[in-house]
Amino acid sequence: MQSQLEAAVEQAARFTGEGKVAAYIPELAKQDKNRLGASVCLLDGTLLTAGDAHVPFTLQSISKIFSLMVALCDHGQRYVFERVGKEPTGDPFNSIVKLELIKPHKPLNPMINAGAIAVAGMIAGASVEERLARMLRLLRKMTGNPDLSVNEAVYRSEQETANRNRALAYFLKDSGILEGDVEETLDFYFRHCAIETTAAELARLGAVLAADGCDPASGERFIPREVARICKTFMVTCGMYNASGAFAIDVGVPAKSGVAGGIMAAVPNRMGIGVYGPALDDKGNSLAGVKLLETISTEWNLSIF
Amino acid sequence: MQSQLEAAVEQAARFTGEGKVAAYIPELAKQDKNRLGASVCLLDGTLLTAGDAHVPFTLQSISKIFSLMVALCDHGQRYVFERVGKEPTGDPFNSIVKLELIKPHKPLNPMINAGAIAVAGMIAGASVEERLARMLRLLRKMTGNPDLSVNEAVYRSEQETANRNRALAYFLKDSGILEGDVEETLDFYFRHCAIETTAAELARLGAVLAADGCDPASGERFIPREVARICKTFMVTCGMYNASGAFAIDVGVPAKSGVAGGIMAAVPNRMGIGVYGPALDDKGNSLAGVKLLETISTEWNLSIF
Amino acid sequence: MQSQLEAAVEQAARFTGEGKVAAYIPELAKQDKNRLGASVCLLDGTLLTAGDAHVPFTLQSISKIFSLMVALCDHGQRYVFERVGKEPTGDPFNSIVKLELIKPHKPLNPMINAGAIAVAGMIAGASVEERLARMLRLLRKMTGNPDLSVNEAVYRSEQETANRNRALAYFLKDSGILEGDVEETLDFYFRHCAIETTAAELARLGAVLAADGCDPASGERFIPREVARICKTFMVTCGMYNASGAFAIDVGVPAKSGVAGGIMAAVPNRMGIGVYGPALDDKGNSLAGVKLLETISTEWNLSIF
Amino acid sequence: MQSQLEAAVEQAARFTGEGKVAAYIPELAKQDKNRLGASVCLLDGTLLTAGDAHVPFTLQSISKIFSLMVALCDHGQRYVFERVGKEPTGDPFNSIVKLELIKPHKPLNPMINAGAIAVAGMIAGASVEERLARMLRLLRKMTGNPDLSVNEAVYRSEQETANRNRALAYFLKDSGILEGDVEETLDFYFRHCAIETTAAELARLGAVLAADGCDPASGERFIPREVARICKTFMVTCGMYNASGAFAIDVGVPAKSGVAGGIMAAVPNRMGIGVYGPALDDKGNSLAGVKLLETISTEWNLSIF
Repeated sequence: MQSQLEAAVEQAARFTGEGKVAAYIPELAKQDKNRLGASVCLLDGTLLTAGDAHVPFTLQSISKIFSLMVALCDHGQRYVFERVGKEPTGDPFNSIVKLELIKPHKPLNPMINAGAIAVAGMIAGASVEERLARMLRLLRKMTGNPDLSVNEAVYRSEQETANRNRALAYFLKDSGILEGDVEETLDFYFRHCAIETTAAELARLGAVLAADGCDPASGERFIPREVARICKTFMVTCGMYNASGAFAIDVGVPAKSGVAGGIMAAVPNRMGIGVYGPALDDKGNSLAGVKLLETISTEWNLSIF
Repeated sequence: MQSQLEAAVEQAARFTGEGKVAAYIPELAKQDKNRLGASVCLLDGTLLTAGDAHVPFTLQSISKIFSLMVALCDHGQRYVFERVGKEPTGDPFNSIVKLELIKPHKPLNPMINAGAIAVAGMIAGASVEERLARMLRLLRKMTGNPDLSVNEAVYRSEQETANRNRALAYFLKDSGILEGDVEETLDFYFRHCAIETTAAELARLGAVLAADGCDPASGERFIPREVARICKTFMVTCGMYNASGAFAIDVGVPAKSGVAGGIMAAVPNRMGIGVYGPALDDKGNSLAGVKLLETISTEWNLSIF
Repeated sequence: MQSQLEAAVEQAARFTGEGKVAAYIPELAKQDKNRLGASVCLLDGTLLTAGDAHVPFTLQSISKIFSLMVALCDHGQRYVFERVGKEPTGDPFNSIVKLELIKPHKPLNPMINAGAIAVAGMIAGASVEERLARMLRLLRKMTGNPDLSVNEAVYRSEQETANRNRALAYFLKDSGILEGDVEETLDFYFRHCAIETTAAELARLGAVLAADGCDPASGERFIPREVARICKTFMVTCGMYNASGAFAIDVGVPAKSGVAGGIMAAVPNRMGIGVYGPALDDKGNSLAGVKLLETISTEWNLSIF
Repeated sequence: MQSQLEAAVEQAARFTGEGKVAAYIPELAKQDKNRLGASVCLLDGTLLTAGDAHVPFTLQSISKIFSLMVALCDHGQRYVFERVGKEPTGDPFNSIVKLELIKPHKPLNPMINAGAIAVAGMIAGASVEERLARMLRLLRKMTGNPDLSVNEAVYRSEQETANRNRALAYFLKDSGILEGDVEETLDFYFRHCAIETTAAELARLGAVLAADGCDPASGERFIPREVARICKTFMVTCGMYNASGAFAIDVGVPAKSGVAGGIMAAVPNRMGIGVYGPALDDKGNSLAGVKLLETISTEWNLSIF
């Protein structure tokens, strides 16, 4: 598998030139678009890496999976899904249209920005710091990296360029979906988007989901099986922005991408996969990263369908 | 005319019970829904009044005409209409849908909230206070009321319940339409919505528009003829929310309404009309006020069509 | 006035090169894009002409005014406006979006295609031929041209390229707005769009509207005053597609355009104006025709605002 | 398993009263809303049945899977997906909005009506009869029922009430998505919706998909593995109308429903499931059928996530 993974990275690396690094957050624009790395974490804990698998980058939208996890653990399905839906949408991740057109004004799912902001508002904690600390604690346990933390420069960069998210958040506030203070919720949202990780760590995180919420090596349970299953389901129906449907056909595994170039995949009962390739396609997914996942999904027959 | 006006008020007063006082701004909800008043200002300066023509209420959306006036005087048509369109829309006044769907993301017209917030951001002045002072100066001259000012309780009430407008403003900021500080622009916007007036004063203001921008009595010019004409045009195409088309057919005069229950009408070369009736129909227009205007438009043959 | 009209045509003719002849109906695409003509009919019956004022072309969307006239005469306001709204829309003339989004599924106004097809379905008559004959009879009286008729080549050309209109019609049928046979209604619709006229005749038709429904010369009443007023109102709020708001500001007179390049304007109590210039702007209005109307509106101070 | 299946049917049958039989197609409205049946086909060919598993009903939207199959076999992925997308949509199955708003005007996926009509237009064959015969041939082989055919009464009933589908089809024609004759394509579409089947047959059809396109008992290949995989993927992302996301979370198996009350599920490598329960929920899915699938998915641990 190691050599196949290396070959897949090498082959997919040819496509990095066709993508574009996210430009709307200045700090992200500084990334090297030629980077590409991948890592696989098997359910016995074996970790394979290839290419730039240890280069740090920020979670961005991948954080939506982890805030959903925490919200589901804090409040249960009923509370969460009264405030955010379960349905995929054909709209872009930052769209506000459906928020107005659908009554009640509830975000369609927790993977679009509106939904993720609603979920961010549900995380229990007396302050932004406490909420963040709770998320970091879980992520540190799941990755085994006690130093996992927020990239402050990226966080500040998000803050400054976040008016579309502010529009979504105030709309949610107006609709009664968001309960707490809007700016605090946004502050938490921007911080958890700016949590820094690597492809290798994403592979471990994916492996926890693949193992139904347990540490693949030790078997220690991090989150309930039910919560892991819900997360993997959203990763299929809406994890890859409005290219989720195509990805499900072409790759066929639960996956969540972020605009910093990361993709975390979880192949149920088989493995977690982490990818980093900051050059994005026009939907916001890592261009070479998707190619790479197509290749190894075909070679290792990973599709769940 | 005086007796006809009185009869029209009396007759229309029967409909106040069918409307509802605006509920989403707590201070507005305190208004007495049975109030109804009307005033006519002829172009020789004669002022007729009937009913509650001297009861104070706030401009709300009627302020959109005056901020547009000031913006046009400050920057000229070209600058203003590069940032806000001239087209009516079938959508509600607080809709955000078209802002996303239409490229570039420019509000369709200055009479919907998105457009009026964009216009509010254009008013010249070093601070919110200075911008407001400039608007008040113009309104005081036009009404002849040197005490015209903001109702602080209503202003605070708007501030607190304004998340939908905040969503619009941050969307505009994100789209590059709004140049200054968002919260300052909103602060100005809420204040100018809370300027307090009466039906009698609205009649005078309407008469200035009817007289092409001049004081009807003295002939003193307040605003350029061109600016007055543009304002009257918007009053026909989009002055009565998404009931503007029906109002143009049923009444046929340029008019602008506000959710506090005011309507200012300007019959070109004939008269200004002010109405106050806080019980609103489902589009947000004074229910009895519209009935009253239908009656006197028919009786006095006011339609411009 | 004659020399001013000629000068205005000459000046506006410079812009014909910037527009494009309608391409989606093959027969319309054959028109000479350099043509430009204008005609003015004063309320004493005087007819001025300049340029290509006698070149024949088809009404296209201008027919929407006349089918509305007949429907209002046949059924009255209440019946008509239960099936079609009175509100302008920011959408393109052939848009289907609002038809689905607005409940009940009623076209927003009779000047967009959906609304005009709904109106076409209201024209009384045992057959398509009889309905058409009734419309032609009215138009022949109003223009004084007993030979006014349908251009068969254009009619056939419309029929063949009309799938978007078919989609609108079947949607209306599904929504219960359209009562009769869909294909018959469409057949009538395409025929009345293909009625052939000239700028001179449009000036006469506009003059009838300007004279509140009467023959300007003889005073003979063709349609009720109320019906004429409603038509002029729609011409302001939605007569120039989704450039109606801009046209109201820039020209300020009730007008209706068609994609064959015609514009019919009615200046209340003053004159009718007909224009022909087949090179269109991107909204579907005669590009040079609008320029021409801007010029003479300014020179003759025609704006009703 | 047999007793568990029977218990699940019995338990779910309590919910039939809460749903409503589809009313917009008169023939469907005649169904008995209290019916409920289920069938499971294991991959060794074993067939279990419970309740009304042999009561005939029509495929309706379930046919969309089979026309997609045939289109993919006829033309390959590239051709098909140039004309119809792969993305789920948050809109109702008969929505036309996105067809206009998304450029190019391509239906978002083959499971909404617009997409399925586009696919219907791709089925090769010299006539409607020939196209239908090709589909029936495949379905007869897969079900093992040589008499499978169209319910003529339902077909005629669909034809007569199909104006919304006609609107979609003419819009597609106008957009160049639909190549052949519109009425012929619709005729084929209505016929294949009216193919009559049973829950037991749906279980067999699902089992073919579960077995990657082969007869579960004999191993005979009916469709390529790739085509089976694509169909199962669409069943997850958009098989249950705009409740697909919730169904993926709550049940977690590829499934397609129809408004006659059928659901066909395919659990990869495990089994096919057929359900019939004509009382629908507000999204158009069999209300008791979904409950039943929830129960057995939990009991037998069927979720693929």
